[in-house]
Amino acid sequence: MGIPSELEEIFASAYSSAIYISRILNLPEPRNKVFVLGESGIEQELRTENVPFIGGTDPSLRREITPADFAGLADGSMLDPDVGIVLAGLDFHVNYLKLAMAFQYLRRANAFFPGAGSISIPLTNMIGQKPTALGKPSQAMMDAIEGKFRLDRARTCMVGDRLDTDIQFGIQGGLGGTLAVLTGVSKKEHWEAEDAAFVPAYYVDKLADLGGERS
Amino acid sequence: MGIPSELEEIFASAYSSAIYISRILNLPEPRNKVFVLGESGIEQELRTENVPFIGGTDPSLRREITPADFAGLADGSMLDPDVGIVLAGLDFHVNYLKLAMAFQYLRRANAFFPGAGSISIPLTNMIGQKPTALGKPSQAMMDAIEGKFRLDRARTCMVGDRLDTDIQFGIQGGLGGTLAVLTGVSKKEHWEAEDAAFVPAYYVDKLADLGGERS
Repeated sequence: MGIPSELEEIFASAYSSAIYISRILNLPEPRNKVFVLGESGIEQELRTENVPFIGGTDPSLRREITPADFAGLADGSMLDPDVGIVLAGLDFHVNYLKLAMAFQYLRRANAFFPGAGSISIPLTNMIGQKPTALGKPSQAMMDAIEGKFRLDRARTCMVGDRLDTDIQFGIQGGLGGTLAVLTGVSKKEHWEAEDAAFVPAYYVDKLADLGGERS
Repeated sequence: MGIPSELEEIFASAYSSAIYISRILNLPEPRNKVFVLGESGIEQELRTENVPFIGGTDPSLRREITPADFAGLADGSMLDPDVGIVLAGLDFHVNYLKLAMAFQYLRRANAFFPGAGSISIPLTNMIGQKPTALGKPSQAMMDAIEGKFRLDRARTCMVGDRLDTDIQFGIQGGLGGTLAVLTGVSKKEHWEAEDAAFVPAYYVDKLADLGGERS
């Protein structure tokens, strides 16, 4: 179109990322390595800017995650201590192993692993609307339970250890009762707080108390 | 703990999903098939409820996406016309092919494909904070450009066809000028609207107009 331009004057987001990392962030060595979730285009731009990286198109990461990987990620032995940044772009070879590695680099020292929400959120994002949730406290789950057992809600009690899933589930589902058990997530002070959103009708210290002498 | 229970009285979210699909949604045949993004647990529950499904642990989907897949998904020839639901859970074998298939089932007749945002959003979700965006209109990209070219912003003009990326990028970056080109996404009426958030300083009908006689 008559506009003279050199290759290096074309500025795409992969290139932008490489420049940003090398010249704006300019991390001190050795914690300046990038873990890449993406394809070769990102790698080329990082190379141009002399930014050290791992991941990306590495063929050793195109495989299923193994029990050894879970262990090695959890104890950190599988992680490169020099990685200070995760750069995520379009990756046609995305897999659970790579997502789990990226997550560990982002969180360090927290040995969590991606759950179902992290697998389904790309779809939620793509479609631009929330899916029907089918875990507690979703009332779709309550409908499903009722659909299966034909139970009488008034004669049903929800037993659980967490206010914002279990007890909320029972209250919003209009069950006859809710019983909090104190051996888990929520504590007595949680529902005794003035701003407590969900208060159980009953509570026991431990579930075994319900069974009398049995434990 | 002294509470008598049968296996079928344990109600997990995969089971909840199967019941919900079979008894609450109760889709009319033949459009009642489920495309599963998940593992064998979900499949077992669907089988228990006699819900027809595809996907899931199907070994033929544990592979890289090919050009033939893109074509077959775009023209629908690779899709099962009976699929009426996508059910997404934890999938240790998630890959781009399965995400793309799920997306097509959700969108039908819209031959889009997942982009970079859909690959990175699991990480965004996992970490609970927004990453630094490096495409337009992110000013991190502008900083990167300035870092690379050492340009004089006052003597620089942003040229682009889209108000909410290109023109916004130039205005927020404090460039000397912004030039809208009318051959692309945004039209004159977009910035002439009263509530226009970003108004270009100049515009041309087509970029070739800048080059005088050349086109």
